[in-house]
Amino acid sequence: MNSPLDLEQQFLFIHEMDLLKSVKRKALIKADNNRYENSAEHSWHICMAAQVLQSHVNYPVDIMRVTQMLLIHDIVEIDAGDTFAFAPQEQLDAQFELEEKAAKRIFGILPDPQRDFYLGLFNEFEESSTNNAKFAKAIDRILPLVQNMQNNGGSWAANKVKRSQVLARNIGLKEVSDSLWNYVENQINKATENGWLLNE
Amino acid sequence: MNSPLDLEQQFLFIHEMDLLKSVKRKALIKADNNRYENSAEHSWHICMAAQVLQSHVNYPVDIMRVTQMLLIHDIVEIDAGDTFAFAPQEQLDAQFELEEKAAKRIFGILPDPQRDFYLGLFNEFEESSTNNAKFAKAIDRILPLVQNMQNNGGSWAANKVKRSQVLARNIGLKEVSDSLWNYVENQINKATENGWLLNE
Repeated sequence: MNSPLDLEQQFLFIHEMDLLKSVKRKALIKADNNRYENSAEHSWHICMAAQVLQSHVNYPVDIMRVTQMLLIHDIVEIDAGDTFAFAPQEQLDAQFELEEKAAKRIFGILPDPQRDFYLGLFNEFEESSTNNAKFAKAIDRILPLVQNMQNNGGSWAANKVKRSQVLARNIGLKEVSDSLWNYVENQINKATENGWLLNE
Repeated sequence: MNSPLDLEQQFLFIHEMDLLKSVKRKALIKADNNRYENSAEHSWHICMAAQVLQSHVNYPVDIMRVTQMLLIHDIVEIDAGDTFAFAPQEQLDAQFELEEKAAKRIFGILPDPQRDFYLGLFNEFEESSTNNAKFAKAIDRILPLVQNMQNNGGSWAANKVKRSQVLARNIGLKEVSDSLWNYVENQINKATENGWLLNE
């Protein structure tokens, strides 16, 4: 590590990261002329949420590893773009393949030991195979819910999403945190009462 | 901790964070129609940079604390706005006062122990009083340099910034990392040769 070549590669990677700022998500930023949120600012937001909510988790978490996962979890979208969480399954499967390829290209810009570290981290998040990844994934799913609740149903209402879909998407939270699950369930109930989620 | 009231306050804070996405900085995002960068995506970008460059630091750093500082260092701009790094001194002094007030209001949304933690973290960053803060601050200053180098001088050229100003702003890096300082000094030389920095 730490050869001049490493530094060149690392700055190339840091420069490449600029591209995540133009990947558009489905959430709208009300405070900024209702423009679409991008994946870079979203990644910052969920890191903050994980920091603030960590004490609610039912088990001990390594908050550094959780934060590292959240920092990098969307970087593959530079090549693969963002897919709506409630898109048809075949679209989600195609996205998965694109993201695998993207991870190899983008983390491959880094020196080998860092490339391997970030590929491992990305796979851990994708597979939700550890307690840390389960918390990270839960946080990534809570934020859109909070945003939709603040935005008259937001992307749910715009895309006719069902209550059962949102429950299924957030169900992993149940084993992560009792208090957060309780909060999320209440929000889903409220959204259903408001007609922002289809009750079928 | 962990009362239902805490959770309400924490989600209020998380919602408030959305506002950082509309605070405009001076850097342009080429890949996204040359729009101005916002402080939320910038915060994500410097967290990534700190992760990737940490092994170049001359002393041991607590990368979790560094990352926490970088995640929150610009939150005060929700109230205080962003001020150009090379603005006149009186403007920078006024900004400092606004930011102190903002920190109290915004971190005050959180439950008391978290408010105190984040105020401490913010002050540590502002005062650059620790090795961790010195690294965090250096990273916050490297990124605009990288962006300007990729953008034909960017905000330097647009605002007729002097070589001596950029050297002075980055000089703290010298004790943080030999290899990063070497890199930055080379970039400043190149920018001067290209006429992007005034040599006076």
